Amino acid sequence: MKTIHSLHSPLNLKDSMLYSVEAGGKRLRPILMMAAYEAFDDLNDRVVEPAVALELVHTYSLIHDDLPAMDDDDYRRGKLTNHKQFNEATAILAGDALLTAAFQVISSSPHIEAEEKVFLTKELSTAAGPEGMVAGQMLDLEAERQSLSLEDMSQIHLLKTGQLIRFAIRAGAYLAGAKPPQLEAINEYAVYLGLIFQIQDDILDVVGNEEKLGKPVGSDEQSEKSTYPKILGLDGARRKKEEYMEKAYQALKTANVREGILYEFVDYLGNRDA
Amino acid sequence: MKTIHSLHSPLNLKDSMLYSVEAGGKRLRPILMMAAYEAFDDLNDRVVEPAVALELVHTYSLIHDDLPAMDDDDYRRGKLTNHKQFNEATAILAGDALLTAAFQVISSSPHIEAEEKVFLTKELSTAAGPEGMVAGQMLDLEAERQSLSLEDMSQIHLLKTGQLIRFAIRAGAYLAGAKPPQLEAINEYAVYLGLIFQIQDDILDVVGNEEKLGKPVGSDEQSEKSTYPKILGLDGARRKKEEYMEKAYQALKTANVREGILYEFVDYLGNRDA
Repeated sequence: MKTIHSLHSPLNLKDSMLYSVEAGGKRLRPILMMAAYEAFDDLNDRVVEPAVALELVHTYSLIHDDLPAMDDDDYRRGKLTNHKQFNEATAILAGDALLTAAFQVISSSPHIEAEEKVFLTKELSTAAGPEGMVAGQMLDLEAERQSLSLEDMSQIHLLKTGQLIRFAIRAGAYLAGAKPPQLEAINEYAVYLGLIFQIQDDILDVVGNEEKLGKPVGSDEQSEKSTYPKILGLDGARRKKEEYMEKAYQALKTANVREGILYEFVDYLGNRDA
Repeated sequence: MKTIHSLHSPLNLKDSMLYSVEAGGKRLRPILMMAAYEAFDDLNDRVVEPAVALELVHTYSLIHDDLPAMDDDDYRRGKLTNHKQFNEATAILAGDALLTAAFQVISSSPHIEAEEKVFLTKELSTAAGPEGMVAGQMLDLEAERQSLSLEDMSQIHLLKTGQLIRFAIRAGAYLAGAKPPQLEAINEYAVYLGLIFQIQDDILDVVGNEEKLGKPVGSDEQSEKSTYPKILGLDGARRKKEEYMEKAYQALKTANVREGILYEFVDYLGNRDA
């Protein structure tokens, strides 16, 4: 990625940042942002920097989440986690650097106006910060080894993974010129999509294929984590997912978006096998 | 501080953020920003949110620097460090939250224009990020137990502490309407001020009063850290500091600022005893 390669940073720090950025995730969030843009207008360079920034924030969150003091994971996407490949200090700093760089990327974009940069900075920092993703990670850590109610568990997901997904979709729609009532409807779509993503994640941890997933299944069972299948049963989780898929389609109709990829995403995320 | 008290965040996260923000530092950076503003215009609300944001970034950096994987400090300003008072996971998240919140504070300010928010976001993220403060912290960790040249050591300080000090002064001057040549001269002042701050820090670690400092002296000697007195001798360090003080005064004359607090800061930071 040009952004990081061109940085004048200490070699280890840069390597560590690149290691995780290039670890090859699904790039779900940038793709969602572009899909939301396309739902309202033809795709355009304006979405490039916001999409990169979002992926940097997501990557930082994975690096910090994997740290020994947090989820203490040794592998991610079939590769050593950042602190295992480098060391803890480097991983902490690489995360800090990626988070900070995200705001540098947005504010330096040559493709969008000042008002748009301010909107995106405000929305991204709100989604990722102490009332958003970080709050979700905190609640998630506190909930370890506890049985949660469906409501409390959903709240954690809405914050921990849902907020960045919501940002992806809102930002794309906003940049493409969606009007306030459309933004509201698309926001609802985004919330359901995040929940669908999480339910399917939980389902795959029970019935998924380890090779396709690139991670061991059954880890939720082992960690005594609250999941949709544990609270609702496997069938109940599937029904909940289908209910949310229906609601996501409804929200798209209300938002009156173009046919296409946002519709397909509901099925793609709801029925993915990895 | 209103900003954090009013957040809808998990209690532990909020407590941990507040603990460090309210730990009562010198507030050097916000004060410098206000002083730089006053050097060009009468003080004004416009500087409030940028100053708060800067202090949040500074506070996050202290929390992460103190972590076991980093400098592993148990006390800061005479109080337990954040991870000792709470735990490591909470301290990592509190730091992440404060860093993110800084960009929320700037982008939400009711007192400044979109163009100004973009300027500040860009400058702050550059100063704090992978080419700025985080780079300095990385180099500092790598330099532990090594004898550095004067040049390498200065480079670390310019990044690790100098960049935020530079931002403080540039941001204040910019918001007060300083013109490009003035901004350049004030930038030079800021670089020297950062170095003066660091040299005096190193000198105080040799000859300072533990009670006034709120931390043990002689810790640099113990940690085999490269310092100005070690490289230049105590007298040499003092002479270097005086040389930089003279250059800082010169830069202020070139910037043609109002008489007053920016001048006084040179003496205050150069001759402080805590």
